[in-house]
Amino acid sequence: MSRIAYVNGQYVPLREAAVHIEDRGYQFADGVYEVFAVLGGKLIGEQGHLDRLGHSLNELHMAWPMGRPAMMVAVKETVRRNHVLNGMVYLQITRGVAPRLHAFPTDAESTLIINAKKLTPPNKETLSEGVEVITIPDIRWQRRDIKSISLLPNVLGNQQAKEAGAYEAWQIDDEGMITEGTLANAWIVTEDGELITRNIGMDILNGITRLTILEAAEAAGIKVTQRAYSKDEALAAREAFLSSSTSHVKAVTRIDGQSIGNGHAGELTLSILDHYMDYIESHGGPRKTDIWK
Amino acid sequence: MSRIAYVNGQYVPLREAAVHIEDRGYQFADGVYEVFAVLGGKLIGEQGHLDRLGHSLNELHMAWPMGRPAMMVAVKETVRRNHVLNGMVYLQITRGVAPRLHAFPTDAESTLIINAKKLTPPNKETLSEGVEVITIPDIRWQRRDIKSISLLPNVLGNQQAKEAGAYEAWQIDDEGMITEGTLANAWIVTEDGELITRNIGMDILNGITRLTILEAAEAAGIKVTQRAYSKDEALAAREAFLSSSTSHVKAVTRIDGQSIGNGHAGELTLSILDHYMDYIESHGGPRKTDIWK
Repeated sequence: MSRIAYVNGQYVPLREAAVHIEDRGYQFADGVYEVFAVLGGKLIGEQGHLDRLGHSLNELHMAWPMGRPAMMVAVKETVRRNHVLNGMVYLQITRGVAPRLHAFPTDAESTLIINAKKLTPPNKETLSEGVEVITIPDIRWQRRDIKSISLLPNVLGNQQAKEAGAYEAWQIDDEGMITEGTLANAWIVTEDGELITRNIGMDILNGITRLTILEAAEAAGIKVTQRAYSKDEALAAREAFLSSSTSHVKAVTRIDGQSIGNGHAGELTLSILDHYMDYIESHGGPRKTDIWK
Repeated sequence: MSRIAYVNGQYVPLREAAVHIEDRGYQFADGVYEVFAVLGGKLIGEQGHLDRLGHSLNELHMAWPMGRPAMMVAVKETVRRNHVLNGMVYLQITRGVAPRLHAFPTDAESTLIINAKKLTPPNKETLSEGVEVITIPDIRWQRRDIKSISLLPNVLGNQQAKEAGAYEAWQIDDEGMITEGTLANAWIVTEDGELITRNIGMDILNGITRLTILEAAEAAGIKVTQRAYSKDEALAAREAFLSSSTSHVKAVTRIDGQSIGNGHAGELTLSILDHYMDYIESHGGPRKTDIWK
């Protein structure tokens, strides 16, 4: 059965899904995106993703392609047409098609594309197996809070990880502090047992799974510190994990070839994973609407 | 008469020129480009552009979509089919179409698109009229030597310039030094009469027009210093100008609302403009093949 994509108001076979070569997403990376997890036929963290999308669009002075409810009808219809019970749905908005000039066109209409894909649902055993990460310099631009399609440095970093046999690359800023991975947020439990993830700001993307974990941890009475932490703290950490909508909560057991803790998923990591799984099943992720205020 | 674009081996009407939504140029900004000036039916700086393109592809571990001679046949054919005697030709190569995963696909073929457009040929009077630039923080990634399509910060900066009624925005690095504009290199003549442009490295794009000017200046016995210079030096400058394949050599007479020199194109700027115009007429721009060694 062939997959279906949504392109500017039409549902088309994925293989025919195309945009104009002068779409500003193609020539200027002038666009934003979101990836929603679909679990058991439900969209996870819908409100969180929409709020962040609103933030990204707002920071780039881009218009919504249509009202949120209408857009979410298209998102859900794309999921339905692809029979995705477990997987993800990808949504991208660009500033539209216009003759190539850097400044914003005055009369272009945003392009909206949506694509959905089946994936194996998250599984506690697999997620707790433990993956390896490497560290690399963070060479990205200074507005990482915007979920833009300007992802070339993430591509290069992720490829470096792949070539090193690792799952992900954690990026180190000019002060020697870890910002985040190329596709997921980074978490550690320090030698002293402090659970840390980088504080939000322009240095990292405010991950929706990151927010889910913060809410789930709070509900479970687990203290999380949001602050910058160094590569040295990470290498000396007792536990580590990463989070994203499609990686979920994934144990990290090696950093730069060095074992973290005893080389297996840590106790707190497993507890966070449990709480996260329960939380997305019962709540569907963050519903608070004020995260981008 | 409708314009024609080249897309992966086919010449198609521009309005139908499309790429797949999973082209990595569209979802990851995973691609590079070049813009050649066409003057009097001739491609300017062909060798310089090809060498730089080779550098960009190499740094991104991307393959040429075909041999250079075959690709240049397509470039010239696109120019011809659009009857461009004076104008520009835009060429973009991406890592091709593949299911969306950050790391490089193992079996995708590069996408090549080419687009050509008529423009008014450069004119000494217009170029010496003088434009205004503003200064903004340089928030780009750290590999500006690669001519990638990851141009979102350039878009935002150029839009800021437009909204300020200026032609261009010169970007200031963390040390208070000017790197370059959002679409053109930046040049000043200091109070002491020193002609300066930023030295190459990863902080700026090595502009082909910049190289043309360096060669033309050398041939004319005009000394150019390649070094970082501060915003203060620029504000106190006697003259200023900018350079790119489509802006050519354009006098800058105001920076951040402040007059440069006497508010008219400076003497050295006009001399460089003359030499540049003569040089591209007689030489067609840099032909040296070792600029990226």
